[in-house]
Amino acid sequence: MRRDVALAHASRLVNHGPTVLVVTEHAGRRNVMAAAWSMPVEFTPPRIAVVVDKKTFTRELLAASGRFALCLPCPPLVDLSCAVGSSSGRDEDKFQRHRIAHFPGPVLGLPLIEGCSAWLELRHLPEPHAEDAYDTVFGEVVSAQADDRVFAQGRWSFRDDNADLHTLHHLGAGRFAVPSRVLSAGG
Amino acid sequence: MRRDVALAHASRLVNHGPTVLVVTEHAGRRNVMAAAWSMPVEFTPPRIAVVVDKKTFTRELLAASGRFALCLPCPPLVDLSCAVGSSSGRDEDKFQRHRIAHFPGPVLGLPLIEGCSAWLELRHLPEPHAEDAYDTVFGEVVSAQADDRVFAQGRWSFRDDNADLHTLHHLGAGRFAVPSRVLSAGG
Repeated sequence: MRRDVALAHASRLVNHGPTVLVVTEHAGRRNVMAAAWSMPVEFTPPRIAVVVDKKTFTRELLAASGRFALCLPCPPLVDLSCAVGSSSGRDEDKFQRHRIAHFPGPVLGLPLIEGCSAWLELRHLPEPHAEDAYDTVFGEVVSAQADDRVFAQGRWSFRDDNADLHTLHHLGAGRFAVPSRVLSAGG
Repeated sequence: MRRDVALAHASRLVNHGPTVLVVTEHAGRRNVMAAAWSMPVEFTPPRIAVVVDKKTFTRELLAASGRFALCLPCPPLVDLSCAVGSSSGRDEDKFQRHRIAHFPGPVLGLPLIEGCSAWLELRHLPEPHAEDAYDTVFGEVVSAQADDRVFAQGRWSFRDDNADLHTLHHLGAGRFAVPSRVLSAGG
């Protein structure tokens, strides 16, 4: 079941390098793209950097609206993740084309994608130089949620019985690693 | 066996979000710290961003020398990764304290850590604002190598028989996920 995640734990959601689906919406247009390149940059306040090519429709909507969302896809969404990562939303509504079920984000109202394992809404922190030189976009997390079957009390729990909720980690060329084995220091 | 990786494939080494060990050296001092937060920002030339707190000794050596290396630890190095991530190298040489075996990087000569699955040397791309505001440090890869039992021909191959060479993905609090299961789109 979808549960709120304390903002103090939000960086944990992307700490281990999952692929994310970047959702944007502005003036009646909406879009989703896949991004393999993201990382937290700060715990408190929770801030995240994500690489979004300046030629994409996502960058246009993101800059115009000042907000974006990150949804963490899991194994049943592998094909969708590749599909939305390889076409532009400039000419068609990918939500409609791929019949993507969604629900409104709790703070910004962005269309968050059903069936993911976690969801974050962010306010854009404009950084013209980093955006221009490195396509690196910064945002501050204003809402965080996760499926409590795989993330609860501030931590991921990857087990055999929730394998369909594990995160995806893009290896390139449509191949994804899934972090199903967990090790502990001193263990 | 350690093999050179074409620079065109260097971003693949960190595409899936592994924890890295950041190695620095300047004027006879050297250091290593663990960083969970890094990502590629560009394929060609291969560029990577990594979050390194401005209070660390690593930042000091990195800024003074203009170079750093990223080594990708694997399961046998879990305890070492936590150990070097939780103490400062300002007062002691962590290489010596933890008896870390190393070899010289092929381009910059940095002390790269034996037993990792991949190694990158980078020239620092100074970005004072991003470094100050987000502790985000950018670098351009000038050498890349990987153990060919787990990365060859530009791609990771995570299998049961090379499990000790899989990458580590920090979940927080000394727990690491290991991406041992691989899925393909359309598969």
